[in-house]
Amino acid sequence: MALYIIGGNEDKEGSCTVLRRFVEAAGGEEAVLIVIPAASGDPAGAGEEYRRVFTRLGAARVEVAAFASRREAAVADLVNILESSTGIFLTGGDQLRLTALLGGTELDRALHRAYRRGAVVGGTSAGAAAMGTTMIVEGPGEEAPRAGVVRMAPGLGLIREVMVDQHFAQRGRLGRLLAAVAHNPYILGLGIDEDTAVLVDDRQRFMVYGSGAVTVVDGREIEHSNISDAGTRPVALTGCRLHVLAAGYGFDLALRRPLLPEV
Amino acid sequence: MALYIIGGNEDKEGSCTVLRRFVEAAGGEEAVLIVIPAASGDPAGAGEEYRRVFTRLGAARVEVAAFASRREAAVADLVNILESSTGIFLTGGDQLRLTALLGGTELDRALHRAYRRGAVVGGTSAGAAAMGTTMIVEGPGEEAPRAGVVRMAPGLGLIREVMVDQHFAQRGRLGRLLAAVAHNPYILGLGIDEDTAVLVDDRQRFMVYGSGAVTVVDGREIEHSNISDAGTRPVALTGCRLHVLAAGYGFDLALRRPLLPEV
Repeated sequence: MALYIIGGNEDKEGSCTVLRRFVEAAGGEEAVLIVIPAASGDPAGAGEEYRRVFTRLGAARVEVAAFASRREAAVADLVNILESSTGIFLTGGDQLRLTALLGGTELDRALHRAYRRGAVVGGTSAGAAAMGTTMIVEGPGEEAPRAGVVRMAPGLGLIREVMVDQHFAQRGRLGRLLAAVAHNPYILGLGIDEDTAVLVDDRQRFMVYGSGAVTVVDGREIEHSNISDAGTRPVALTGCRLHVLAAGYGFDLALRRPLLPEV
Repeated sequence: MALYIIGGNEDKEGSCTVLRRFVEAAGGEEAVLIVIPAASGDPAGAGEEYRRVFTRLGAARVEVAAFASRREAAVADLVNILESSTGIFLTGGDQLRLTALLGGTELDRALHRAYRRGAVVGGTSAGAAAMGTTMIVEGPGEEAPRAGVVRMAPGLGLIREVMVDQHFAQRGRLGRLLAAVAHNPYILGLGIDEDTAVLVDDRQRFMVYGSGAVTVVDGREIEHSNISDAGTRPVALTGCRLHVLAAGYGFDLALRRPLLPEV
Protein backbone atom coordinates (compact mmCIF):
# COMPACT_ATOMS: atom_id res chain seq x y z
CA MET A 1 0.00 0.00 0.00
CA ALA A 2 1.41 3.33 -1.07
CA LEU A 3 -0.10 6.71 -1.80
CA TYR A 4 1.58 9.47 -3.75
CA ILE A 5 -0.08 12.82 -3.11
CA ILE A 6 0.97 15.77 -5.30
CA GLY A 7 0.07 19.42 -4.62
CA GLY A 8 -0.69 20.17 -8.28
CA ASN A 9 1.16 21.94 -11.08
CA GLU A 10 4.08 19.51 -11.02
CA ASP A 11 6.86 19.90 -13.57
CA LYS A 12 6.11 17.95 -16.77
CA GLU A 13 8.79 19.41 -19.04
CA GLY A 14 12.06 19.66 -17.11
CA SER A 15 13.56 17.13 -14.73
CA CYS A 16 10.06 15.96 -13.69
CA THR A 17 11.33 15.16 -10.19
CA VAL A 18 7.87 14.68 -8.76
CA LEU A 19 6.36 12.53 -11.53
CA ARG A 20 9.58 10.54 -11.93
CA ARG A 21 9.35 9.48 -8.29
CA PHE A 22 5.82 8.20 -8.91
CA VAL A 23 6.95 6.06 -11.84
CA GLU A 24 9.84 4.69 -9.75
CA ALA A 25 7.54 3.88 -6.84
CA ALA A 26 5.26 2.00 -9.25
CA GLY A 27 8.10 -0.15 -10.55
CA GLY A 28 10.11 2.08 -12.89
CA GLU A 29 10.74 0.26 -16.16
CA GLU A 30 8.28 -2.38 -15.10
CA ALA A 31 5.55 0.04 -14.14
CA VAL A 32 2.09 -0.63 -15.55
CA LEU A 33 0.21 2.62 -15.04
CA ILE A 34 -3.44 3.57 -15.36
CA VAL A 35 -4.32 7.24 -15.62
CA ILE A 36 -7.81 8.10 -14.39
CA PRO A 37 -8.67 11.56 -15.71
CA ALA A 38 -12.18 11.57 -14.24
CA ALA A 39 -11.64 14.83 -12.33
CA SER A 40 -10.74 16.71 -15.49
CA GLY A 41 -13.06 18.78 -17.64
CA ASP A 42 -11.00 17.51 -20.59
CA PRO A 43 -10.42 13.87 -19.66
CA ALA A 44 -9.05 12.88 -23.08
CA GLY A 45 -6.52 15.74 -23.03
CA ALA A 46 -5.49 15.20 -19.41
CA GLY A 47 -5.20 11.44 -19.89
CA GLU A 48 -3.09 11.84 -22.99
CA GLU A 49 -0.79 14.38 -21.32
CA TYR A 50 0.08 12.03 -18.45
CA ARG A 51 0.32 9.06 -20.78
CA ARG A 52 3.00 10.93 -22.71
CA VAL A 53 4.93 12.05 -19.62
CA PHE A 54 4.87 8.64 -17.91
CA THR A 55 5.94 6.94 -21.13
CA ARG A 56 8.82 9.39 -21.48
CA LEU A 57 9.79 8.69 -17.86
CA GLY A 58 10.19 5.02 -18.73
CA ALA A 59 7.03 3.25 -17.60
CA ALA A 60 6.53 -0.11 -19.35
CA ARG A 61 2.90 0.54 -20.16
CA VAL A 62 0.47 3.41 -19.65
CA GLU A 63 -3.28 3.13 -20.16
CA VAL A 64 -5.88 5.84 -19.83
CA ALA A 65 -9.10 4.83 -18.13
CA ALA A 66 -11.52 7.34 -19.59
CA PHE A 67 -15.17 7.05 -18.70
CA ALA A 68 -17.93 9.60 -18.85
CA SER A 69 -20.58 7.98 -16.66
CA ARG A 70 -20.93 5.85 -13.55
CA ARG A 71 -22.27 3.09 -15.74
CA GLU A 72 -19.06 3.07 -17.81
CA ALA A 73 -17.08 2.89 -14.59
CA ALA A 74 -18.47 -0.59 -14.04
CA VAL A 75 -17.32 -2.02 -17.36
CA ALA A 76 -15.20 -5.11 -16.92
CA ASP A 77 -12.42 -3.96 -19.25
CA LEU A 78 -11.65 -0.94 -17.11
CA VAL A 79 -11.81 -2.98 -13.94
CA ASN A 80 -9.46 -5.56 -15.40
CA ILE A 81 -6.75 -3.13 -16.44
CA LEU A 82 -6.84 -1.68 -12.93
CA GLU A 83 -6.29 -5.10 -11.48
CA SER A 84 -3.12 -5.67 -13.47
CA SER A 85 -1.64 -2.23 -12.75
CA THR A 86 1.28 -1.32 -10.49
CA GLY A 87 0.31 2.36 -10.34
CA ILE A 88 -2.90 4.35 -10.68
CA PHE A 89 -2.86 8.09 -11.25
CA LEU A 90 -5.74 10.49 -10.58
CA THR A 91 -5.38 13.72 -12.54
CA GLY A 92 -6.38 17.21 -11.46
CA GLY A 93 -9.64 18.96 -12.22
CA ASP A 94 -12.55 19.00 -9.82
CA GLN A 95 -12.53 16.61 -6.86
CA LEU A 96 -16.31 16.55 -6.76
CA ARG A 97 -16.49 15.49 -10.40
CA LEU A 98 -14.05 12.69 -9.54
CA THR A 99 -15.92 11.37 -6.50
CA ALA A 100 -19.37 11.82 -8.05
CA LEU A 101 -18.29 9.80 -11.09
CA LEU A 102 -16.14 7.17 -9.37
CA GLY A 103 -17.37 6.82 -5.80
CA GLY A 104 -19.09 3.52 -5.06
CA THR A 105 -18.67 2.12 -8.58
CA GLU A 106 -17.07 -1.20 -9.47
CA LEU A 107 -14.00 0.77 -10.59
CA ASP A 108 -13.77 2.44 -7.17
CA ARG A 109 -13.77 -0.97 -5.51
CA ALA A 110 -11.11 -2.15 -7.99
CA LEU A 111 -9.05 0.93 -7.10
CA HIS A 112 -9.19 0.07 -3.41
CA ARG A 113 -8.33 -3.56 -4.13
CA ALA A 114 -5.35 -2.50 -6.24
CA TYR A 115 -4.25 -0.16 -3.46
CA ARG A 116 -4.46 -2.89 -0.83
CA ARG A 117 -2.51 -5.36 -2.93
CA GLY A 118 0.33 -2.85 -3.30
CA ALA A 119 -0.28 -0.68 -6.36
CA VAL A 120 0.79 2.93 -5.81
CA VAL A 121 -2.16 5.29 -6.01
CA GLY A 122 -1.04 8.76 -7.07
CA GLY A 123 -3.03 11.93 -7.48
CA THR A 124 -2.38 15.55 -8.22
CA SER A 125 -4.44 18.61 -7.29
CA ALA A 126 -8.09 17.42 -7.26
CA GLY A 127 -6.78 13.85 -7.38
CA ALA A 128 -4.78 14.61 -4.24
CA ALA A 129 -7.60 16.42 -2.45
CA ALA A 130 -9.90 13.44 -2.90
CA MET A 131 -7.65 10.93 -1.13
CA GLY A 132 -8.81 11.46 2.43
CA THR A 133 -11.93 10.17 4.11
CA THR A 134 -13.21 13.73 4.11
CA MET A 135 -12.08 16.17 1.45
CA ILE A 136 -12.19 19.93 1.03
CA VAL A 137 -14.42 20.69 -1.95
CA GLU A 138 -14.11 24.45 -1.96
CA GLY A 139 -13.31 27.39 0.23
CA PRO A 140 -11.68 30.69 -0.52
CA GLY A 141 -7.93 31.09 -0.23
CA GLU A 142 -6.21 34.28 0.79
CA GLU A 143 -8.50 35.17 3.62
CA ALA A 144 -8.93 34.58 7.33
CA PRO A 145 -10.11 31.09 8.27
CA ARG A 146 -13.90 30.96 8.27
CA ALA A 147 -16.03 27.96 9.13
CA GLY A 148 -19.15 28.45 7.07
CA VAL A 149 -17.34 28.90 3.79
CA VAL A 150 -15.25 25.72 3.74
CA ARG A 151 -17.26 23.05 1.99
CA MET A 152 -16.33 19.45 2.69
CA ALA A 153 -17.53 16.11 1.36
CA PRO A 154 -16.66 12.43 1.66
CA GLY A 155 -13.45 11.59 -0.22
CA LEU A 156 -12.14 8.33 -1.65
CA GLY A 157 -11.03 7.18 1.80
CA LEU A 158 -7.58 5.96 0.78
CA ILE A 159 -5.99 7.63 3.79
CA ARG A 160 -7.59 8.09 7.18
CA GLU A 161 -7.38 10.89 9.70
CA VAL A 162 -5.75 13.12 7.10
CA MET A 163 -7.25 15.98 5.11
CA VAL A 164 -5.26 17.09 2.08
CA ASP A 165 -5.15 20.60 0.66
CA GLN A 166 -3.14 21.41 -2.46
CA HIS A 167 -1.69 24.42 -4.31
CA PHE A 168 -1.14 25.28 -0.66
CA ALA A 169 1.29 28.21 -0.48
CA GLN A 170 0.47 29.32 -4.02
CA ARG A 171 -3.19 29.91 -3.21
CA GLY A 172 -2.77 31.07 0.39
CA ARG A 173 -4.78 28.16 1.81
CA LEU A 174 -3.62 28.12 5.44
CA GLY A 175 -6.90 29.68 6.54
CA ARG A 176 -9.15 27.12 4.93
CA LEU A 177 -7.04 24.16 6.06
CA LEU A 178 -7.04 25.46 9.66
CA ALA A 179 -10.79 25.96 9.50
CA ALA A 180 -11.23 22.41 8.14
CA VAL A 181 -9.03 20.91 10.86
CA ALA A 182 -10.78 22.89 13.58
CA HIS A 183 -14.05 21.15 12.69
CA ASN A 184 -12.62 17.99 14.20
CA PRO A 185 -9.05 18.35 15.43
CA TYR A 186 -8.21 14.64 15.32
CA ILE A 187 -7.82 15.19 11.56
CA LEU A 188 -4.28 15.98 10.48
CA GLY A 189 -4.12 18.72 7.84
CA LEU A 190 -1.62 18.29 4.99
CA GLY A 191 -1.05 21.41 2.91
CA ILE A 192 0.98 20.42 -0.14
CA ASP A 193 2.63 23.05 -2.32
CA GLU A 194 2.71 22.88 -6.09
CA ASP A 195 5.40 20.65 -7.66
CA THR A 196 5.69 18.87 -4.31
CA ALA A 197 4.55 15.43 -3.22
CA VAL A 198 4.47 13.00 -0.33
CA LEU A 199 4.90 9.25 -0.71
CA VAL A 200 2.99 7.49 2.07
CA ASP A 201 4.13 3.93 2.75
CA ASP A 202 2.38 1.03 4.44
CA ARG A 203 3.95 1.89 7.78
CA GLN A 204 2.04 5.19 7.74
CA ARG A 205 5.12 7.23 7.13
CA PHE A 206 5.62 9.70 4.34
CA MET A 207 8.60 11.34 2.69
CA VAL A 208 8.56 14.68 0.86
CA TYR A 209 9.70 15.16 -2.76
CA GLY A 210 9.82 18.15 -5.07
CA SER A 211 10.58 21.85 -5.01
CA GLY A 212 8.13 23.18 -2.43
CA ALA A 213 7.10 22.41 1.12
CA VAL A 214 4.47 20.39 2.93
CA THR A 215 2.75 22.09 5.85
CA VAL A 216 1.46 19.72 8.52
CA VAL A 217 -1.27 21.11 10.77
CA ASP A 218 -1.66 19.00 13.90
CA GLY A 219 -4.82 20.11 15.64
CA ARG A 220 -4.78 17.62 18.51
CA GLU A 221 -3.26 20.15 20.89
CA ILE A 222 -5.78 22.85 20.00
CA GLU A 223 -6.88 24.24 23.36
CA HIS A 224 -9.77 26.35 22.21
CA SER A 225 -11.64 27.16 19.06
CA ASN A 226 -14.84 29.03 18.29
CA ILE A 227 -15.67 26.85 15.29
CA SER A 228 -19.11 25.84 16.49
CA ASP A 229 -20.21 29.47 16.94
CA ALA A 230 -18.24 31.24 14.25
CA GLY A 231 -20.63 30.89 11.32
CA THR A 232 -19.08 32.92 8.55
CA ARG A 233 -17.09 35.08 10.98
CA PRO A 234 -13.36 34.37 11.30
CA VAL A 235 -12.40 31.20 13.11
CA ALA A 236 -10.19 31.57 16.16
CA LEU A 237 -8.13 28.68 17.46
CA THR A 238 -5.25 28.44 19.88
CA GLY A 239 -2.44 26.00 20.45
CA CYS A 240 -2.21 24.43 17.00
CA ARG A 241 1.02 22.67 16.09
CA LEU A 242 2.64 23.29 12.73
CA HIS A 243 5.47 21.58 10.88
CA VAL A 244 6.88 22.67 7.56
CA LEU A 245 8.70 19.90 5.70
CA ALA A 246 10.85 20.13 2.59
CA ALA A 247 12.37 17.46 0.34
CA GLY A 248 14.33 14.97 2.43
CA TYR A 249 12.04 15.36 5.43
CA GLY A 250 9.32 12.96 6.38
CA PHE A 251 6.53 12.42 8.86
CA ASP A 252 5.26 9.50 10.89
CA LEU A 253 1.47 9.72 10.67
CA ALA A 254 0.90 7.18 13.44
CA LEU A 255 3.18 8.93 15.92
CA ARG A 256 2.44 12.38 14.45
CA ARG A 257 6.14 13.11 14.52
CA PRO A 258 8.38 14.73 11.85
CA LEU A 259 11.24 12.64 10.47
CA LEU A 260 14.45 14.60 9.94
CA PRO A 261 16.92 13.91 7.14
CA GLU A 262 19.72 11.63 8.18
CA VAL A 263 22.92 13.63 8.37
CA MET B 1 2.26 53.36 25.90
CA ALA B 2 0.02 51.86 23.30
CA LEU B 3 0.52 50.58 19.79
CA TYR B 4 -2.18 50.05 17.21
CA ILE B 5 -1.04 47.77 14.43
CA ILE B 6 -3.27 47.41 11.35
CA GLY B 7 -2.86 44.80 8.62
CA GLY B 8 -3.59 47.26 5.80
CA ASN B 9 -6.59 47.97 3.59
CA GLU B 10 -8.83 48.92 6.52
CA ASP B 11 -12.35 50.15 5.82
CA LYS B 12 -12.44 53.93 5.34
CA GLU B 13 -15.98 54.31 3.96
CA GLY B 14 -18.33 52.09 5.97
CA SER B 15 -18.44 51.58 9.72
CA CYS B 16 -14.66 52.12 9.92
CA THR B 17 -14.42 49.72 12.88
CA VAL B 18 -10.65 49.54 12.78
CA LEU B 19 -9.87 53.26 12.39
CA ARG B 20 -12.62 54.22 14.84
CA ARG B 21 -10.92 52.14 17.54
CA PHE B 22 -7.68 54.03 16.92
CA VAL B 23 -9.38 57.39 17.36
CA GLU B 24 -11.05 56.15 20.57
CA ALA B 25 -7.76 54.85 21.95
CA ALA B 26 -6.19 58.24 21.27
CA GLY B 27 -8.89 60.09 23.22
CA GLY B 28 -11.95 60.14 20.97
CA GLU B 29 -13.36 63.63 20.82
CA GLU B 30 -10.24 64.91 22.53
CA ALA B 31 -7.83 63.13 20.22
CA VAL B 32 -5.05 65.23 18.75
CA LEU B 33 -3.72 63.17 15.89
CA ILE B 34 -0.65 63.46 13.69
CA VAL B 35 -0.57 61.55 10.43
CA ILE B 36 2.93 60.68 9.20
CA PRO B 37 2.63 59.67 5.54
CA ALA B 38 6.37 59.17 5.07
CA ALA B 39 5.98 55.59 3.81
CA SER B 40 3.71 56.69 0.99
CA GLY B 41 4.70 57.46 -2.57
CA ASP B 42 2.00 60.14 -2.47
CA PRO B 43 2.41 61.59 1.01
CA ALA B 44 0.12 64.56 0.42
CA GLY B 45 -2.69 62.31 -0.83
CA ALA B 46 -2.26 59.70 1.89
CA GLY B 47 -2.01 62.34 4.60
CA GLU B 48 -5.13 64.09 3.38
CA GLU B 49 -7.10 60.83 3.15
CA TYR B 50 -6.46 59.94 6.79
CA ARG B 51 -7.00 63.55 7.90
CA ARG B 52 -10.46 63.38 6.38
CA VAL B 53 -11.34 59.98 7.88
CA PHE B 54 -10.07 60.78 11.38
CA THR B 55 -11.91 64.12 11.32
CA ARG B 56 -15.10 62.37 10.29
CA LEU B 57 -14.58 59.87 13.12
CA GLY B 58 -14.61 62.75 15.60
CA ALA B 59 -10.98 63.53 16.43
CA ALA B 60 -10.56 67.03 17.88
CA ARG B 61 -7.63 67.87 15.65
CA VAL B 62 -5.73 66.12 12.87
CA GLU B 63 -2.41 67.35 11.48
CA VAL B 64 -0.37 65.88 8.67
CA ALA B 65 3.38 65.79 9.21
CA ALA B 66 4.62 65.76 5.65
CA PHE B 67 8.33 65.89 5.06
CA ALA B 68 10.37 64.91 2.06
CA SER B 69 13.86 64.70 3.54
CA ARG B 70 15.66 63.72 6.71
CA ARG B 71 16.60 67.37 7.17
CA GLU B 72 12.93 68.39 7.21
CA ALA B 73 12.28 65.66 9.78
CA ALA B 74 14.37 67.66 12.24
CA VAL B 75 12.38 70.89 11.93
CA ALA B 76 11.15 72.12 15.30
CA ASP B 77 7.54 72.67 14.15
CA LEU B 78 7.08 69.04 13.28
CA VAL B 79 8.72 67.91 16.49
CA ASN B 80 6.49 70.22 18.52
CA ILE B 81 3.22 69.02 17.05
CA LEU B 82 4.29 65.46 17.80
CA GLU B 83 4.89 66.38 21.41
CA SER B 84 1.36 67.68 21.89
CA SER B 85 -0.34 64.75 20.17
CA THR B 86 -2.38 61.95 21.72
CA GLY B 87 -2.09 59.73 18.65
CA ILE B 88 0.37 59.30 15.81
CA PHE B 89 -0.51 57.43 12.65
CA LEU B 90 1.93 55.92 10.17
CA THR B 91 0.36 55.33 6.76
CA GLY B 92 1.05 52.53 4.33
CA GLY B 93 3.45 52.60 1.42
CA ASP B 94 6.96 51.26 1.65
CA GLN B 95 8.43 50.44 5.08
CA LEU B 96 11.94 51.09 3.83
CA ARG B 97 11.01 54.56 2.61
CA LEU B 98 9.57 55.21 6.09
CA THR B 99 12.58 54.04 8.07
CA ALA B 100 15.12 55.55 5.67
CA LEU B 101 13.42 58.93 5.96
CA LEU B 102 12.51 58.88 9.65
CA GLY B 103 14.97 56.59 11.43
CA GLY B 104 17.41 58.37 13.73
CA THR B 105 16.01 61.86 13.06
CA GLU B 106 14.82 64.32 15.68
CA LEU B 107 11.26 63.40 14.66
CA ASP B 108 11.97 59.71 15.30
CA ARG B 109 13.14 60.59 18.82
CA ALA B 110 10.02 62.72 19.33
CA LEU B 111 7.90 59.78 18.16
CA HIS B 112 9.48 57.52 20.76
CA ARG B 113 9.09 60.18 23.48
CA ALA B 114 5.41 60.62 22.58
CA TYR B 115 4.96 56.84 22.67
CA ARG B 116 6.58 56.58 26.12
CA ARG B 117 4.45 59.37 27.57
CA GLY B 118 1.28 57.59 26.44
CA ALA B 119 0.38 58.67 22.91
CA VAL B 120 -1.03 55.82 20.82
CA VAL B 121 1.20 55.02 17.87
CA GLY B 122 -0.82 53.50 15.06
CA GLY B 123 0.30 52.19 11.70
CA THR B 124 -1.18 50.37 8.76
CA SER B 125 0.50 48.12 6.20
CA ALA B 126 4.06 49.49 5.82
CA GLY B 127 3.44 51.57 8.95
CA ALA B 128 2.59 48.34 10.78
CA ALA B 129 5.49 46.35 9.37
CA ALA B 130 7.97 48.96 10.58
CA MET B 131 6.98 48.76 14.24
CA GLY B 132 9.20 45.92 15.34
CA THR B 133 12.90 45.97 16.13
CA THR B 134 13.45 43.98 12.95
CA MET B 135 11.06 44.30 10.05
CA ILE B 136 10.33 42.31 6.92
CA VAL B 137 11.18 44.51 3.94
CA GLU B 138 10.25 42.13 1.19
CA GLY B 139 9.75 38.50 0.40
CA PRO B 140 7.42 36.71 -1.95
CA GLY B 141 3.99 35.60 -0.78
CA GLU B 142 2.23 32.50 -2.01
CA GLU B 143 5.20 30.20 -1.97
CA ALA B 144 6.99 27.81 0.31
CA PRO B 145 9.02 29.48 3.08
CA ARG B 146 12.52 30.23 1.83
CA ALA B 147 15.31 31.80 3.83
CA GLY B 148 17.36 33.62 1.23
CA VAL B 149 14.46 35.52 -0.25
CA VAL B 150 13.07 37.17 2.88
CA ARG B 151 14.77 40.52 3.26
CA MET B 152 14.81 42.06 6.72
CA ALA B 153 16.03 45.37 8.13
CA PRO B 154 15.98 47.29 11.41
CA GLY B 155 12.52 48.67 12.17
CA LEU B 156 11.37 51.55 14.36
CA GLY B 157 11.78 49.46 17.50
CA LEU B 158 8.46 50.36 19.10
CA ILE B 159 7.77 46.75 20.00
CA ARG B 160 10.35 44.14 20.90
CA GLU B 161 10.56 40.45 20.21
CA VAL B 162 7.76 40.78 17.68
CA MET B 163 7.91 40.77 13.90
CA VAL B 164 4.83 42.05 12.11
CA ASP B 165 3.61 40.94 8.71
CA GLN B 166 0.52 42.45 7.12
CA HIS B 167 -1.99 41.75 4.33
CA PHE B 168 -1.37 38.32 5.84
CA ALA B 169 -4.07 35.95 4.57
CA GLN B 170 -4.75 38.10 1.51
CA ARG B 171 -1.21 37.78 0.22
CA GLY B 172 -0.52 34.23 1.43
CA ARG B 173 2.35 35.27 3.70
CA LEU B 174 2.58 32.34 6.10
CA GLY B 175 5.70 31.11 4.34
CA ARG B 176 7.65 34.33 4.62
CA LEU B 177 6.65 34.93 8.24
CA LEU B 178 7.68 31.38 9.20
CA ALA B 179 10.99 31.85 7.40
CA ALA B 180 11.53 35.17 9.22
CA VAL B 181 10.72 33.63 12.61
CA ALA B 182 12.95 30.62 11.95
CA HIS B 183 15.94 32.97 11.64
CA ASN B 184 15.71 33.54 15.36
CA PRO B 185 12.81 31.75 17.02
CA TYR B 186 12.65 33.99 20.09
CA ILE B 187 10.87 36.44 17.80
CA LEU B 188 7.09 36.16 17.86
CA GLY B 189 5.54 36.46 14.39
CA LEU B 190 2.31 38.44 14.07
CA GLY B 191 0.50 38.00 10.76
CA ILE B 192 -2.28 40.57 10.58
CA ASP B 193 -5.03 40.32 7.98
CA GLU B 194 -6.42 43.29 6.10
CA ASP B 195 -9.03 45.40 7.91
CA THR B 196 -7.82 43.90 11.19
CA ALA B 197 -5.77 45.41 14.01
CA VAL B 198 -4.23 44.73 17.39
CA LEU B 199 -4.11 47.27 20.21
CA VAL B 200 -1.08 46.58 22.38
CA ASP B 201 -1.25 48.08 25.87
CA ASP B 202 1.48 48.89 28.36
CA ARG B 203 1.07 45.52 30.07
CA GLN B 204 2.21 43.85 26.85
CA ARG B 205 -1.20 42.51 26.05
CA PHE B 206 -3.07 43.02 22.84
CA MET B 207 -6.68 42.74 21.76
CA VAL B 208 -7.88 42.06 18.19
CA TYR B 209 -10.29 44.32 16.29
CA GLY B 210 -11.75 44.22 12.80
CA SER B 211 -13.07 41.73 10.29
CA GLY B 212 -10.13 39.34 9.78
CA ALA B 213 -7.80 37.31 11.92
CA VAL B 214 -4.39 37.65 13.51
CA THR B 215 -2.08 34.65 13.18
CA VAL B 216 0.47 34.32 15.98
CA VAL B 217 3.54 32.22 15.16
CA ASP B 218 5.37 31.22 18.33
CA GLY B 219 8.71 29.76 17.32
CA ARG B 220 10.11 29.09 20.78
CA GLU B 221 9.11 25.44 20.67
CA ILE B 222 10.64 24.88 17.23
CA GLU B 223 12.59 21.64 17.60
CA HIS B 224 14.48 21.72 14.35
CA SER B 225 14.95 23.97 11.37
CA ASN B 226 17.27 23.94 8.38
CA ILE B 227 17.33 27.73 8.13
CA SER B 228 21.10 28.05 8.31
CA ASP B 229 21.65 25.65 5.40
CA ALA B 230 18.56 26.22 3.30
CA GLY B 231 19.80 29.09 1.13
CA THR B 232 17.03 29.69 -1.35
CA ARG B 233 15.69 26.14 -1.00
CA PRO B 234 12.51 25.69 1.05
CA VAL B 235 12.82 26.10 4.78
CA ALA B 236 11.81 23.16 6.94
CA LEU B 237 10.88 23.60 10.58
CA THR B 238 9.13 21.40 13.10
CA GLY B 239 7.16 22.00 16.26
CA CYS B 240 6.02 25.56 15.66
CA ARG B 241 3.03 26.78 17.67
CA LEU B 242 0.26 28.67 15.96
CA HIS B 243 -2.70 30.65 17.25
CA VAL B 244 -5.36 32.28 15.12
CA LEU B 245 -7.21 35.09 16.88
CA ALA B 246 -10.32 36.95 15.79
CA ALA B 247 -12.04 40.06 17.15
CA GLY B 248 -12.67 39.68 20.87
CA TYR B 249 -9.58 37.54 21.39
CA GLY B 250 -6.31 38.79 22.76
CA PHE B 251 -2.79 37.73 23.52
CA ASP B 252 -0.38 38.20 26.41
CA LEU B 253 2.97 38.89 24.78
CA ALA B 254 4.93 38.48 28.01
CA LEU B 255 3.41 35.09 28.83
CA ARG B 256 2.94 34.18 25.15
CA ARG B 257 -0.55 33.04 25.93
CA PRO B 258 -3.83 33.67 24.05
CA LEU B 259 -6.58 35.52 25.90
CA LEU B 260 -10.05 34.14 25.26
CA PRO B 261 -13.20 36.27 25.15
CA GLU B 262 -14.99 36.40 28.46
CA VAL B 263 -18.23 34.47 28.19
